[in-house]
Formats: sequence, C-alpha cells, structure tokens
Amino acid sequence: MATILSDLGTEILIPICAVIGILFSLFQWYLVSQVTLSPVKSDGKNGYKESLIEEEEGINDHTVVTKCAEIQSAISEGATSFLFTMYQYVGVFMVIFAILIFVFLGSVEGFSTSSKICTYDTTKTCKPALMTAVFSTVAFLLGAVTSVVSGFLGMKIATYANARTTLEARKGVSKAFIVAFRSGAVMGFLLAANGLLVLYITINLFKIYYGDDWEGLFESITGYGLGGSSMALFGRVGGGIYTKAADVGADLVGKVERNIPEDDPRNPAVIADNVGDNVGDIAGMGSDLFGSYAESSCAALVVASISSFGNTHDFTSMMYPLIVSSVGILVCLITTLFATDFFEVKTVKQIEPSLKNQLIISTVLMTIGIAIVSWIALPSSFTIFNFGAQKVVKNWQLFLCVSVGLWAGLIIGFVTEYYTSNAYSPVQDVADSCRTGAATNVIFGLALGYKSVIIPIFAIAVSIFVSFSFAAMYGVAVAALGMLSTIATGLAIDAYGPISDNAGGIAEMAGMSHRIRERTDALDAAGNTTAAIGKGFAIGSAALVSLALFGAFVSRAEITTVDVLTPKVFIGLLVGAMLPYWFSAMTMKSVGKAALKMVEEVRRQFNTIPGLMEGTAKPDYATCVKISTDASIKEMIAPGALVMLTPLIVGIFFGVETLSGVLAGSLVSGVQIAISASNTGGAWDNAKKYIEAGVSDHAKSLGPKGSDPHKAAVIGDTIGDPLKDTSGPSLNILIKLMAVESLVFAPFFATHGGLLFKFF
Amino acid sequence: MATILSDLGTEILIPICAVIGILFSLFQWYLVSQVTLSPVKSDGKNGYKESLIEEEEGINDHTVVTKCAEIQSAISEGATSFLFTMYQYVGVFMVIFAILIFVFLGSVEGFSTSSKICTYDTTKTCKPALMTAVFSTVAFLLGAVTSVVSGFLGMKIATYANARTTLEARKGVSKAFIVAFRSGAVMGFLLAANGLLVLYITINLFKIYYGDDWEGLFESITGYGLGGSSMALFGRVGGGIYTKAADVGADLVGKVERNIPEDDPRNPAVIADNVGDNVGDIAGMGSDLFGSYAESSCAALVVASISSFGNTHDFTSMMYPLIVSSVGILVCLITTLFATDFFEVKTVKQIEPSLKNQLIISTVLMTIGIAIVSWIALPSSFTIFNFGAQKVVKNWQLFLCVSVGLWAGLIIGFVTEYYTSNAYSPVQDVADSCRTGAATNVIFGLALGYKSVIIPIFAIAVSIFVSFSFAAMYGVAVAALGMLSTIATGLAIDAYGPISDNAGGIAEMAGMSHRIRERTDALDAAGNTTAAIGKGFAIGSAALVSLALFGAFVSRAEITTVDVLTPKVFIGLLVGAMLPYWFSAMTMKSVGKAALKMVEEVRRQFNTIPGLMEGTAKPDYATCVKISTDASIKEMIAPGALVMLTPLIVGIFFGVETLSGVLAGSLVSGVQIAISASNTGGAWDNAKKYIEAGVSDHAKSLGPKGSDPHKAAVIGDTIGDPLKDTSGPSLNILIKLMAVESLVFAPFFATHGGLLFKFF
Repeated sequence: MATILSDLGTEILIPICAVIGILFSLFQWYLVSQVTLSPVKSDGKNGYKESLIEEEEGINDHTVVTKCAEIQSAISEGATSFLFTMYQYVGVFMVIFAILIFVFLGSVEGFSTSSKICTYDTTKTCKPALMTAVFSTVAFLLGAVTSVVSGFLGMKIATYANARTTLEARKGVSKAFIVAFRSGAVMGFLLAANGLLVLYITINLFKIYYGDDWEGLFESITGYGLGGSSMALFGRVGGGIYTKAADVGADLVGKVERNIPEDDPRNPAVIADNVGDNVGDIAGMGSDLFGSYAESSCAALVVASISSFGNTHDFTSMMYPLIVSSVGILVCLITTLFATDFFEVKTVKQIEPSLKNQLIISTVLMTIGIAIVSWIALPSSFTIFNFGAQKVVKNWQLFLCVSVGLWAGLIIGFVTEYYTSNAYSPVQDVADSCRTGAATNVIFGLALGYKSVIIPIFAIAVSIFVSFSFAAMYGVAVAALGMLSTIATGLAIDAYGPISDNAGGIAEMAGMSHRIRERTDALDAAGNTTAAIGKGFAIGSAALVSLALFGAFVSRAEITTVDVLTPKVFIGLLVGAMLPYWFSAMTMKSVGKAALKMVEEVRRQFNTIPGLMEGTAKPDYATCVKISTDASIKEMIAPGALVMLTPLIVGIFFGVETLSGVLAGSLVSGVQIAISASNTGGAWDNAKKYIEAGVSDHAKSLGPKGSDPHKAAVIGDTIGDPLKDTSGPSLNILIKLMAVESLVFAPFFATHGGLLFKFF
Repeated sequence: MATILSDLGTEILIPICAVIGILFSLFQWYLVSQVTLSPVKSDGKNGYKESLIEEEEGINDHTVVTKCAEIQSAISEGATSFLFTMYQYVGVFMVIFAILIFVFLGSVEGFSTSSKICTYDTTKTCKPALMTAVFSTVAFLLGAVTSVVSGFLGMKIATYANARTTLEARKGVSKAFIVAFRSGAVMGFLLAANGLLVLYITINLFKIYYGDDWEGLFESITGYGLGGSSMALFGRVGGGIYTKAADVGADLVGKVERNIPEDDPRNPAVIADNVGDNVGDIAGMGSDLFGSYAESSCAALVVASISSFGNTHDFTSMMYPLIVSSVGILVCLITTLFATDFFEVKTVKQIEPSLKNQLIISTVLMTIGIAIVSWIALPSSFTIFNFGAQKVVKNWQLFLCVSVGLWAGLIIGFVTEYYTSNAYSPVQDVADSCRTGAATNVIFGLALGYKSVIIPIFAIAVSIFVSFSFAAMYGVAVAALGMLSTIATGLAIDAYGPISDNAGGIAEMAGMSHRIRERTDALDAAGNTTAAIGKGFAIGSAALVSLALFGAFVSRAEITTVDVLTPKVFIGLLVGAMLPYWFSAMTMKSVGKAALKMVEEVRRQFNTIPGLMEGTAKPDYATCVKISTDASIKEMIAPGALVMLTPLIVGIFFGVETLSGVLAGSLVSGVQIAISASNTGGAWDNAKKYIEAGVSDHAKSLGPKGSDPHKAAVIGDTIGDPLKDTSGPSLNILIKLMAVESLVFAPFFATHGGLLFKFF
C-alpha cells in the first residue's frame, strides 16, 4: 500500500516547487523592470530584443515618460494609502474574531486541558479541544496575514507595471502585451507559490506539537482557510465599492455630462478610478483566489485526515493536494513561456487567442501532471470516510476527480469568453440592441447573463457528480483543487486585465496620442474577457470548495443526513438562497450611494474650479480619493457583518441542521447570481468597446463615440460596473466563507448550538 | 372523533358558498353594466346615486362616448382574437400531453385492469393504475378547460369595464374607482367560485366510480391542478410576451423618439399595448391564481387522503380545504362591501389606503372564519402521514397552520406595498437617483428589488416552519390555502390595476382632457402597487404550494429522505436553482426581440404614413397586433417546453432523487428572482409616475415630463416591463408546475425512471 514517492521525496518536492515558482516570479519581475521609467535613449538597451517594434512613437519624449512616472506614483500612493487604512479597520475585526474563535472552540470541552479520545479512531487519544482552539486561532491569523500580503504584493506589482505597459505601447501592441502579461505572471506565480509555501510550513510546524494526532492537526489548519477568506471578503467588498464608486462617478459626469473621454486628466475622479482598479480587481482578486486555494487545500486535508492513509499516517498520500498544487506551478511555468517566448503576439487579433491558448495548454499539461501525481503519490486503493460509512477509492478514480474539476474550469472559461468577448454574437447582439436605446440594451444584457449560467452550471454539476460519486467529499475537494491547480496562469491572465486598463488610463492622462490609446484599449478589451474568465474560475472553484467544506462541516458537526424534507433544513435552504440577494442589495446600494457623492464632488469641481475644463487648472484628485476611501470603509461593514455573523447566529440559535440548509441554499443560489452578474457586466463593457472600436461594418453602423447607440452602451456599462466588480465577485466569497466558518465552528455548534429549538 | 359539521352539511355548504360567490359576481357585473356606453343625458339614470360627483365634464359629449365604445371594442376584439389563436396552439399541446399522461400512468402496472392492494392501507384493495391514468387525464383536461375559461372570462370582464371606468372618470376619481374595483370583484368572485365549484363537482363525480378508494380518487384529482397550471404557464408567458413587446415597442418610439404621450392614438402600437394588458395581466393572472388555488387544494387533498380521517372516510374532515375556501368567499364578499358601500373613496389619497384596508379586513375576518371551520369541520385530533411515519395533529394546530399562511400573505402584501408604492422612501430614493441618469436608476432599482426579498422570505420561512412542524406536508398545503383563502379579494384588487391602466389609455385615445387622464393615472399608480401585491401573493402561495406538492411527490415516489449530501440530489439542487435563470433569459430575450420588431414597424409607420404625426391619418393598428400575436405564440413554445419537459427528462433519465433536488432548487431560487423582478419593475414604474405626478416638492424638482430625470425614469420603467410582467410572474408557475407535474407522474418515475443510473 506504500506510495512510489517516498515521504522524503514529498518533503523535498513541495518546497522546491514553491521556491521555483517564487524564483520564476522574480525573474519575470526583473524582465518587467527593464522597462525604465526614466527617459532613456532608444539604444536597444530598453528591454529585450526589439525586433517586434511595429512603430516607435515619442520614445524620446521626456515629458511623456516623466508624466507617466508621476501618474504611476500617484496611483501607487493612493492604493497603498487605501489598503493601509482598510487593513487598520480589518485588523481590529481580525483580533476580535480571533478571540471569538479561541473562546468558542475552547468552550467546546469547557477549556479542559486534558487529552480526549479521538472521534474517528477511538483507539487513540487526541489533543484537547483547547489546543485546537489555540492552533485554529493561530492558523486563522496566519491565513489572514498571508491573504493581506498576497493582495498587497499584487497591487504593488500591478501599479509597478501599468505605466511600463503604457510606455511599451508606444512601440506596439506586441511589446505592451508582453509587459502586461509578464506582470500578471509575477503576481500569479508569487501568490500561488507563497500560498503553498506558507501552508506547507504551517503544517510542518503544527505537526511538531500534534505529532500523531492528524485529526486535530488538520482541524486546526482549517483556520488558515477562514483567515484567508475573511480578508478576501473585506478586500473584495471594500475594494469593489472603492473602484466602482470612482468609476461610475467619473463616467457619469465626465463621459455623459461633460463629453470628455474616459480617464481624461481633467476629471477629478480619474486617479481614484485608476487606484480602484488596483485595490479592487487586483488586491481583492488576489486575496480571493488565495482564499479559494487555501480553503480547497484545507477542505481536502481535513477530509483526508480521517481517510485510511490519514489513519495510517501516510505522509505522501496525505500531502496529495499540496503535491498537485506544486506540480501545477511547474505546469504553469511552462505554459507562460508559450505566451512570452515560444510564440509572439504580433497583432491585436492575436491577443485573445494567445490568452485562450494559455488556458488550453495549462489544462492539457496539467492533466498529464495529475496522472503522474496520482500514480506516484497515492496508494492504488484506499478508503475515504463518507458520512459515517467508509468508501473504497482507487487512485485512477482520484485522478478523474481532479481532472474533471480541471476540465470543468476550462469549459467555464470558454463559455465565459463566448458570452463576454465582442468577437462573438452574444455581445454583438447586445451592442445591436443599443440602436433602440438603453432599455433594450439592459434587457438583452440581463438576458445574456442569465443565459450564460446554463453551461457552467452543468459543468459544475458534472464535476460534482463524478467526484462525489468516486470519492465523496474528498473527491469534491480535489476537484476544486484541480480547477485551481493552474491558478498561477489564471491569476496571470486575470491580472493582465486591470494592468492594461490602467495603462490606457495613464496614456490618456499623460496626453499620449490616440494610437497608443487604441492599442491599450485593444489590450483592455481582451482584459475584460479574461477578467470575466477569472471570475468564472473563481466562482466555479468556489462552488466546489464550498460543497467540500459543507461536507466537512456536516461530518464534523456529527450529523449524517441533511434532509430537505425537514422543516429545520428547508427553512435554512430558503433563507440561505435569499442571502446572496440581501448581500447584493447592500453592495449595489453602497456603490450607488458612493457614486452619487462622487458625482456631486466632480460636478462641484467642474463648476467651481476655473479653467478646469480648459485644462489650465488641475483638479483636486485627493478629495475624490478620500470620498472613495471613506465610502468603501464605511459601506463594507454591513455586508461583511452579514456574511460573518449569519453562520454564527444560525448555528447558535437554530443549530447545525438549519445551518446546513443555509449553506446549501446560499451555495446553489449564489453561484447563479455571481456568474450572471459578472458576465452581464463584462458583456456590457465589451459591447461598449465594440461600438467604440468600430472594427466591423456592423460596429461602425452603431458608432462612433457620442452616437445615441454609444450613449446607450455607456449606460449599460455603468450599470454593469457594480454587478461585475462588486456584487458578483463578492458572492463567491460569501458562499465559501460561510462554509469554512461553519466548519471551523462546527464543534461549538454541535455542542452548544440550536438554543431556540432546545427551548421549544 | 366525529365532526360538528355533518357530512350532509358539508355537501350543502360548499356548493351554496360557490353559488353565492357567482351570484355576487353577477350582481357586481350588473352594477358595472349600468354605466352605459351609448350616449345618454345626465338625468340620474346613469348608474347609482351620483352624490359623489366632484365635477362633471363632457358628460354630454356624444363623440367621446362613441369613441370610447369604439376603442373598447377594438381592444376586446384584439384580445379575443389573440386568446383564440393561442388556445388553438395550446389545445394541440394539451391533447398531446393528455395522451402522455394516459400512456405513462397506464404503463405503471402494464395497463393491467385488475385491482391492486392499496399502498397505504394494505388491508384494502384499490382501483387499477389504468383507471387512475384515465381519471388523471380527465381531471387534467377539466383543469385546463377551467383555467382557460377563467382567463377568458376575466379578459371579457376587464375589457367590458375599461371604457366604463374612463367614462366614470369624467365624474370624478370616486366614481371611476368604484367601477374599476367592482369590475375587479366580478372577476375575483367568478373565478374563485367557479374554481371551487368545478373541483367540488369533479370530486363528487369521480367518487361515483372510486367509491371507497380515496387514495386513487385524490391521486387522479391532482391532474386537475396540473391542467390548471399548464394553461396558466402558457397564458402568463404568451400573454406576458404579447403585452410587453407592445408596451416596450410603443414606448421606445412614441415616448422616447417622438415625444408623444403614452397611449397616444397616433402611436400604431397603442391598441396592441392595451390588448396586452388584458391578455397578460388579466387573463394570464386569472389562470395563474386559479392554478395556484387548484394545486393547493389538490395538494392538501392528496395528503389528506392518507391521513386518519382519509382512511376512515370522514367526508367533512376530508373536505376541510374546500370548506376553508368556501368560507373565504363569504369573507371576501363582506370585505368587498367595505370598499364599495360602507366607506367611500373621495380623493386620490384614499385609493391606496382603501385597497390596503381590503387586505387587512379580509385577513382579520378570515382568521375568525378559519377558527370556526377548524372547530366544526375537523376532529379534535387526527393523524397525518409524514414520510413513512404518523404524526398526531390537533385541530387548533391546523387552525394555526392555515392562519400563519394567511397572515404571511398579509405581511408579504404590506412589504410589497412599501417597496413599490411611491408614498414611501424606497421608490422615492429610486426616483431621486434619476438625477444622475438611467444607470443609477437601474442600479438603485435592482438593489431595491433584491432588498425587498428579505422580509417575504422570512415570512414564508416562518409559515413553512410552523405549518410543517405542526402538520407536516398537510400543514404546508393548508397554509398555502390560507394565503389563497382571500383569493377573491386578492384578484379583485389585482385586476383593478390593468383595468385602470386601460381606462387611462382609452381616455388618451378618445382625446379626453388632461384632468381625466390625471384621475386614471392616480388610479393606475395605486394599480401598480396592487399588481405587485397580487404578484407577491401569487409567489408566496406558489412557494408554499410547491413545497406541499413536492412533499406529496416524495411520498408518492416512495422515497423517505431527500438528502442534500448525496450526489444525485445535490446536482439536482444546483441545476434546479439554475432553471429560473434559463427560463428568465428566454422570456426576456423574447420580449426584447419582439419589441425590436415592434419598434421597426412603428418607426416604419411614422416614416411612411403621411400625416400620422399630425393626427390627420390613422395608423395601421392591425399590423402591430399581428406582430405581438405572432411573436408571443412563437416565443412561448421554448420556455413552455423547458418547464414541461424538465420534470419528464429528469424523472425518466435521472430518477426521483435528482428530480427532488431539481424541485427544491428551483423552488428556493425561483422565489427570490420572482419577488425581486416584480418589485423592481413595480418600483421603476411608480418612480416614473412619481416624477410625472409631481405631487411633492421633491417630485417637482425631478420633473416635469420630458426632463432628464424623467427620461431616465422612463428607461427604468421600460426595463422593468419584462421583469415585472413576463419573467417574474411566470416564475411562480414554473416552480408550481414542475412540482405538480412530478406529483402526477410520480408513480411512473418510481417504476420506470432513473434510466441513466440503472445502466451505470
């Protein structure tokens, strides 16, 4: 029953892969940094070989470069300052929540320090619940800090890269693409490798205390996932409100009322808008995907700890989830080279295929990787604990579980691309509906979002069915890991979007020519699609992760069935399905309110600062930044509290059955809204870009900028902003976070929960 | 254990109440008919006493009356012609589906004609499955025909009343209100009494064959609910597409491009728009609420048939659900008098309170009614079959079950009113957000809809918990009946809305003065709110009915638990939660596409018919009517097929466990979308009306008609049209229909279903 890969091999393989990922990331960073932000002569030293240069424009214009550098530092400072402000508030919350975890979990056995008999293997003794409380708290804080660091580093990288992308755009689309993509890769590899390394080190450190008690060890490790996800929640919600308040506010006055272009430096909200892209789409997303990754690893580990190899302490098999992620880093590394070195993007038309190829290549290579890992790191047959029964699993079955998740991710990615890219008919139909005004645009856009849910849901359903049937909740957890195994590539193409968006903004603000702006717009249009793909991955994996966590919660709460046909469960299901609506109502209203404030301020500046419209006076960017900052800090509290408190309230007052219902309900309902919201928003954005770009005859007949159809498209785009960047992406955190929180607190709920029903 | 009310008393009570309802309805019709559509002198003969006349205007203008009569007959003809066309297509479907029911149910025991041992009482013999197939088919056809007749009669009444309301509006708001409300009452009482009577007669006729086999009797009666609901589906979807294609098309060209008022006779789509109100909001809603009523009665009966009083053949107790409905008719009769005779609506401000009082009075009176019925028609204690176990229920517990449904309905009604009436801050906030354009209007409107879901869901959850805990699925079924027990009043205030809407349209088209239009607009604004309340009732009751039907399905499919933690059930849950999105995508796209066609036609007429804008030439109304007719017939097929085929496909290929998941998933997800869609739409409509009416200083600052905020509000209103009148209201049929269809086919699925899993 031994595995081919020895325990020592495992001990070496995982950290080595993580280190390779970090080194690769640093190397990419080095390449990006070769684009200097100080004016240099075009002597061939400016970056790598320049054989691809289509046209050089203003390379020697020192003022442009200086301006870019200035704008970049303004954006970077704004983002850093916002994140630090947010971290202060969130820090307070983290400390309170850490105390809560300790007290609640410690109280399960009355803060007793004596060892107890293990739950699943009654022949052994396990560490006291008090120590699980301590280690869970520590893991929680570690997860939170890692998540913060991930988001922060991502933001730093993105703000480092944006102006460099702009400058490279002077040399052509190809150059700009490479810089933007490499910067995305820096973030992708750094986050993936960092997440893996911290988790691996934590496990090894905890093992020093826990020794043979793997049940307790991996129970406390789940705190890591909770920490990661709760930071991600605040990052996504706060960042999402920040970015969209600024974006919507800037567009409503600038584009609609004043008829000035997007990102025009005369618009007082323009810096806040660009800061927003970095704190919302980059830092928020970084935290989010790190959270997903941490949670799916934790879910797999906690289920595995009570499997046959968990009981026999087979370290290599136990570390299977981490080995899959390790191999994923290597696979993504090779995949990246296909975009940057093996092939070249020469024209605008090649951008989207190149990004799409990243998905295909990484998926194909990873399938081989998973096959090898499943062969060498697993016994040919083992048993998994399945709600009270044991289930025999073969290693090839587990290979199928991981693979089905991986390929489902690819399908979701393709479907998302189809519905949000303006190369296909759905977005073109939406653009066409702008002929009859904003109303039909919105109706068609909403219908598109609803329709785009169908195939991803079937893909997720098939993965769940296959993985669940083969290996119960362990199967579902590794399927989620499969979908996330190419996270480095996923993050790279996802981060590429906001970087390109910022690059366009900087080009506009630095007063560069329209040709440059057209190039960055082309990059950005592909970026909207990749952002939607990234959100598709995030929500798909969140669905699988949540189900795995939910399963682990049910096991740990010591219930064996969750029967819909009991009133306790059914009302949970119904109310759970409502939570995503409640949450979305809060976040959308927050964006709306903050945007109104922003509109007032921008209008005020246009009306009171003489010479602003003429470009002779500078707007007061700082006030707009402050409005976004204050609004997002204030407005993230209520939705954050809704998500964090619901499992606690339900668990304490209604008990674990109702909580199970709530988790299942919010899962199946939240997935749909999240997918449709992000695709609707992406489609509207690209419908607008389709009209603006005017590449085909059809597009030309709708344009140009300023035409009635274009105005209708701008309205759709604005409505889509909070849907795709605030509500939608926050929802997947909602479902994951409630599940992981329930899992962490499960022993407490099982012991002390359900107060209301105890009295009736 | 005998009941106070004797069986003979029951045999008399139910038909008597039904007949009283029909007579009352005829009396109301007589009163409405006193408003003559031929020109008369104002000699006091024109209707009842005219002490309320605030002001008489153009009473003697013969041309106005003639014009009104003309327009009315055009609307009535259009509606009749559309409904007949639709019934032809739907008729074909009905025949095919009837054959399917017969073949599938007949095949359960291989078309054997021999009697079998009963499922629940094995000491008895029951009629052969073949006869259940025959009677189910007959019941299905009866339900379908009754539903069609209900919708058709409703439409006839409404088109009879609309012009009369317009004419009475010349005399003042008070008069117009009374006519519109009485006409609503005609429809409400006719449908409620008719539904009750047909069901009662059917049961008695079926009993002649079935005799003591109540299990078989009430199994076949469920076909009645299926028939009612499937017609309602086509009515709602077809009618919904019809009305909104015309409405959106008319508004986009007329209001937005040509700056002519709503319902202007120069607009070619104006007749189609007014026809649409009658086929969609009236006929569709009539069929829908009839379906809910039929289904909740059937669900209660089929569960009751295997209770202790079902086994002992206690007829009065068995008829408890029908007795509740009978008493409901009496209660509603008294309630109606409060609006028409006991109190008078004198000013615009009294309209909404008067309608709201209808809800309160009927609820209070009905609570007393339920108490009496529960006391006289039930044994003090009895047992209910609860998924394999017996549950003891006291009569006071059942009283609580019905009451909790009734009061939950009231709460849902009030919450809906709060979120959709422009007397409260939510709609005023939405109106205010129009300052910054259509985008913020849409964002705030969507957020409002999402938020409006919270309290109704808690109300439904509490009703489910209470009724489920007390009396299992029987409790849930009677809770649904409780919510629908005041259906006559609900329908009356619901039908009042489209009638007022039409009345305003006729006033505009007949060229009556602005004062008349203002009065009908005031009626209509209250109508938007009551329509939303009606939809709230429809969806709330649909949730309860579906759950009861779902429970009955599970019992009949012979499974005892629906465990979320099995892959078969979970994927069903996930896919089920997706179905409302798929369905909404179809219906919204259909409206969008049909509206685009309508826009083209209307534009064509404006551009090619000389003198149209000047009012010297008549538009070609018929072509627009044809476009709406063709589009709705064509577009209703796909969503109809989705709903009707899903249970069949899932049941046959995946089996009853997965089907259970699908039903639960679509239920918990569909409820949320339905409520939010109809409230968002209602809020947008009334935000627009708020700006137009300009009653408060705040409203005046946003107006007048034609201002930028008003234009933004019109866009919101147009987007809300398909949400509130097509997708939203169809969704509650989706969840009910899938549940009742599963219930009818349950024996077949249990015997021959789950083919896919049998092979794996």
